[in-house]
Amino acid sequence: MGIITIIGAGNVGQTIAGHMALLGHTVRMFSRWNDEFQPIRDRGGIELFGEINGTAMPDSLTSDLVEAVENADVVVIAAPAFAHPSISASLAPVLEPDQLVVFQPTVLGSGVELSRQFLLNDREPCLIAESGTSLYTCRLKEPAKVYVGAVKDSIQISAIPSSRSQEVIDRLVPFFGEHYIPAADSLSVGLSNSNPIYHVPPAVLNFKTVEDAERLPQHSLVTPRIGEAIDALDKERLALAAALHTETTSFWQFLDDAYGVNEGSFVERVIQGYGRQSFPEPDSVKHRYFTEDIPFGLVIWSSLAKQLGLAMPLTDGFIAISNVLCGTDFYQDGRTADALGLKDGSVDDIVDVFRNGVR
Amino acid sequence: MGIITIIGAGNVGQTIAGHMALLGHTVRMFSRWNDEFQPIRDRGGIELFGEINGTAMPDSLTSDLVEAVENADVVVIAAPAFAHPSISASLAPVLEPDQLVVFQPTVLGSGVELSRQFLLNDREPCLIAESGTSLYTCRLKEPAKVYVGAVKDSIQISAIPSSRSQEVIDRLVPFFGEHYIPAADSLSVGLSNSNPIYHVPPAVLNFKTVEDAERLPQHSLVTPRIGEAIDALDKERLALAAALHTETTSFWQFLDDAYGVNEGSFVERVIQGYGRQSFPEPDSVKHRYFTEDIPFGLVIWSSLAKQLGLAMPLTDGFIAISNVLCGTDFYQDGRTADALGLKDGSVDDIVDVFRNGVR
Repeated sequence: MGIITIIGAGNVGQTIAGHMALLGHTVRMFSRWNDEFQPIRDRGGIELFGEINGTAMPDSLTSDLVEAVENADVVVIAAPAFAHPSISASLAPVLEPDQLVVFQPTVLGSGVELSRQFLLNDREPCLIAESGTSLYTCRLKEPAKVYVGAVKDSIQISAIPSSRSQEVIDRLVPFFGEHYIPAADSLSVGLSNSNPIYHVPPAVLNFKTVEDAERLPQHSLVTPRIGEAIDALDKERLALAAALHTETTSFWQFLDDAYGVNEGSFVERVIQGYGRQSFPEPDSVKHRYFTEDIPFGLVIWSSLAKQLGLAMPLTDGFIAISNVLCGTDFYQDGRTADALGLKDGSVDDIVDVFRNGVR
Repeated sequence: MGIITIIGAGNVGQTIAGHMALLGHTVRMFSRWNDEFQPIRDRGGIELFGEINGTAMPDSLTSDLVEAVENADVVVIAAPAFAHPSISASLAPVLEPDQLVVFQPTVLGSGVELSRQFLLNDREPCLIAESGTSLYTCRLKEPAKVYVGAVKDSIQISAIPSSRSQEVIDRLVPFFGEHYIPAADSLSVGLSNSNPIYHVPPAVLNFKTVEDAERLPQHSLVTPRIGEAIDALDKERLALAAALHTETTSFWQFLDDAYGVNEGSFVERVIQGYGRQSFPEPDSVKHRYFTEDIPFGLVIWSSLAKQLGLAMPLTDGFIAISNVLCGTDFYQDGRTADALGLKDGSVDDIVDVFRNGVR
């Protein structure tokens, strides 16, 4: 049995904490807001049902980061993308080189950012890992009660440095079992996030429905031509991956991998993949389809592409239009090559940093 | 009485031809498609009603351009923007230096393009003029029967060379009366076209309604945030005008000038200006809101801006997204600095060409 720390008390954080506590590990949950733990205290633990069943209380629920991570074997970051920069800045001064920290899920550059924080703090980095998706398909049904639909298999994970990915997997087995496989590198994992591809075009291209908070199902907004826009945006992402000497999964391949959808028109595939889930479209410009998918998706893609001299006109177009629709500057708020310390890097420099960390 | 030739047999072309024939001028109408004249032959002339009343038959209805323009005092081009390049290429070899040709309405660069065609054909240019809007508010109610809502006053017109604008006005008075005033230059006139500002954002940002051919009124698609997008796009156009050392009317000023609308939120102003007209939104990607406003509006703005090093991210964004939504390349189809022979020009070169023609 080991010590595992979960940063974040949402959906995924509660699932991991509950599961690990059920298995008998020493579990510490960290949240900046102590109030977030109240439902867990009220229920006497985290209740899981579905693929995993039982109620268990973590060993500690704390807002003290040092206390949370001290001597932990594994630190899992299960927090929204916008929290990653501040979490990394807080973790770098306190993590020790023999510890393992896992972004689950990550967004492109979160591992590099943490690696850079170690350098800025003049500390030896710990082992960093990133997976593109969470191990669990889960949904909060009531406070502190989570439905676990599945524990996924073959989740790609990459270490920084990427040469240590197998070591990461080996160190995770005692906690999570054999569910991870090594990815090519953290670029491949980070670029595999196709949320912005599916979320942004239908939302922007049906903006009145967002502003009117109609909450139609997202898949119902995808027309044949909007399907083409999704595909064209995806091709820009794949071109960026190629320019960075890595490969990642296309959106249509993801639909096949995740839902077994591989036939029909773009609209038919979207309906097959998402029709039953009926996720509502965003109901305001504060929805994560804008506030997360743009600054931590489209913006970092565009920013890296600019540095490589690669044109991403659709990506840039959706950012520019979303900036004015949302009344903000997502370049200012978001992750950029500059924010990752990569501003003057060549392709080789950038690839090296993603594979080996900032040195 | 003089000789006037109308190129184009649409709405505006029929109104001008009918009015000029009623006044007793010698009127020749040109269309590439003889079939377009059949309704006029069937009715025994063009019938106007409303502000102008009566039926008159032009002296000739022809598909022979040389015959149409020979010895004409004034040649009026009343054709859609996409026809301007081929019309100019056909006219340059046949117009004589003492003739006057008027684009009514023009789109940015049509005069420069004709001027360039004279040079390419090694011919002395005739006097060229451009107005940003048609003299008549008119609508075809039946074949060859046009409702004339108004004959507008204070229509800005500019000559190429701009020093000859007053001469253009003097030469038009015998035909049209005192309805024109001199504009600063043909850049100011060309940039005054705010159609793309009002047409493109609501159509692109409600694209499902276009693809579904819902034909909702365009003004009903303008939400508060889409109003902000209209305003931001307009500001890019005004910045381009400033960079080209000229001024033009903002979209909101245009609403005031044209409809007396000058108060309230953006949405309220749009409803006041357009609510009663209830223009339907585009019902397909073949609609002129895309096929005219993008290649002959946003594209030439963007193209000139690129050459000046001026960023127009929203303009570029709407072009890139419309390209994929419409399955075309509007940069390829549209008017660019390169197509106007301005590719290597400095700001001063570009301004000089718009003011004095290609020399």
